Amino acid sequence: MSGARKAALALAGGVGGAKLAAGLQHTLGDALTVVVNTGDDFEHLGLHISPDLDTVMFTLAGVANKSQGWGLEGETWNFMAQLERLGGSAWFRLGDKDIANHLLRTSRLAEGLSLSQMTQQLCDAYGVRAKLLPMSDDPVRTIVHSGELAIPFQEYFVKLQCGPRVDRLEFRGASTARMNALLGCIAPGSLEAVVFCPSNPYLSIDPILSIPGVREWLRSLGAPVVAVSPIVAGTAIKGPAAKIMRELGHEPSAATVAAHYRGIIDGLLIDTSDMDLQGEIEALGIAVRVTNTVMKSDADRITLAEESLRFAREVSKR
Amino acid sequence: MSGARKAALALAGGVGGAKLAAGLQHTLGDALTVVVNTGDDFEHLGLHISPDLDTVMFTLAGVANKSQGWGLEGETWNFMAQLERLGGSAWFRLGDKDIANHLLRTSRLAEGLSLSQMTQQLCDAYGVRAKLLPMSDDPVRTIVHSGELAIPFQEYFVKLQCGPRVDRLEFRGASTARMNALLGCIAPGSLEAVVFCPSNPYLSIDPILSIPGVREWLRSLGAPVVAVSPIVAGTAIKGPAAKIMRELGHEPSAATVAAHYRGIIDGLLIDTSDMDLQGEIEALGIAVRVTNTVMKSDADRITLAEESLRFAREVSKR
Repeated sequence: MSGARKAALALAGGVGGAKLAAGLQHTLGDALTVVVNTGDDFEHLGLHISPDLDTVMFTLAGVANKSQGWGLEGETWNFMAQLERLGGSAWFRLGDKDIANHLLRTSRLAEGLSLSQMTQQLCDAYGVRAKLLPMSDDPVRTIVHSGELAIPFQEYFVKLQCGPRVDRLEFRGASTARMNALLGCIAPGSLEAVVFCPSNPYLSIDPILSIPGVREWLRSLGAPVVAVSPIVAGTAIKGPAAKIMRELGHEPSAATVAAHYRGIIDGLLIDTSDMDLQGEIEALGIAVRVTNTVMKSDADRITLAEESLRFAREVSKR
Repeated sequence: MSGARKAALALAGGVGGAKLAAGLQHTLGDALTVVVNTGDDFEHLGLHISPDLDTVMFTLAGVANKSQGWGLEGETWNFMAQLERLGGSAWFRLGDKDIANHLLRTSRLAEGLSLSQMTQQLCDAYGVRAKLLPMSDDPVRTIVHSGELAIPFQEYFVKLQCGPRVDRLEFRGASTARMNALLGCIAPGSLEAVVFCPSNPYLSIDPILSIPGVREWLRSLGAPVVAVSPIVAGTAIKGPAAKIMRELGHEPSAATVAAHYRGIIDGLLIDTSDMDLQGEIEALGIAVRVTNTVMKSDADRITLAEESLRFAREVSKR
């Protein structure tokens, strides 16, 4: 397969997106670039923590903790137990191995390295084949507005367990953030596909799209843009996407995902359980591929990745 | 014993000093104040690390790693293994539990807490009964001058294993550092003794004495000042004290310790193996107590602590 293949670009957030990115990496190897959301980055105990970058990196390196759904496999918790004993803040769990990432990243950023450079160093150390790029080297912070409250994302997501109603999302810093300069290395015409992974549209993909110039740049690549719906049968496989969709006044469905991405995607892959939505989505001018989008195994990831690339090729011929 | 006893003050650096401080705490409880060297504090991977404060704190809390000679008992090393895997700096070993101290201290100092306040919080959490005070809340950094080189202390001590010849020691920042303000809470006449623990005179006690006003303040307390020689039979129980003594042009002996502390101590406790030095030291105007100063067991610590206090009482009556 590797001879004639072109490259591809994926946009991803956390766990679901990372799974499809891993499938794409299996097929494309180092011809895959993954742009990762950094809107959920935050400072905690003085550490710069990049949850989505880590999740994608660990997943692509094959060292993600699958049963836990985040963090590293074979993780231990001796730091955390001691921190709790000392009365430290314990709502965000930091594994002993995980802290090595955070501390190394934080200290090298303080020395002047960019987040992109640091991500490259970590990916090299972990043996990630795809190219992982934070959406921007400038800080963008997702803020959840709920009534009078402006809640930093990780507090909403981890401490408050996505409890508060989402009235509005703010990507603080996005309007002045610069798109990752390394994205400029991707030559127009060099990609066979841009794939929006099945990440949360509001919390994972929108922050990337909110960086000035990203939407125009995506179009300028001249590649078909397809997305995989993170909503299956009206619910999210993981995370608060369906809940937020409802709170923002929409029916949780793959059709809502399609409407949300209208004007930027050419095609949407939806699950077989949502096949009755095909007509509704196509009426929006978006091509549809009905397939199994639930990734339970490594084989599922690869199958869905290949189906996404195949669908993109078909879309581009229309 | 607790009814009539007065309070005492100890000056201490690392392991040897911590042992005697633990003995003193056994006898005096919260009537003991320990002033701890911070000249070997340093920044590493963005963390504020206070090795002597930690050693004394862990020892007084009964959680020090006795076999290792530093750090916490029951320590694990999963962070360190991961850090090495990621190509991080590995010359200074950071245990999983230990990092909880460092990270909590670093983040709270960044929030504006003083090192004294943070030390108090950690001591409360660990259940230390004595009052531990860093010598100053201002940064003082011990620099080892060796030929043309100016080597930060931890690099000299850990990375270079005390290999380079010491030509001169510098306590950078000491001349403008303020003595810990909480030492002002100790009322003149309230102490039965000031005890210089058997720590390295050059690396542990001298930094404390180099803070402007400390020597005068010690005298103003009106308490007898006694020291326990860290040199026994011409060698140091632990650490480079004897080597440095030689490099600075002195014979490694308890008599050299006496000469070094001349004018500030009233009495010196020396080991039975050094009893032949008694006359030489007394000729300096320093009282001598010959006793067993090698602390192999918890009982040894208590015996030496009680002997130090008894000796101080006797010295004060002369």
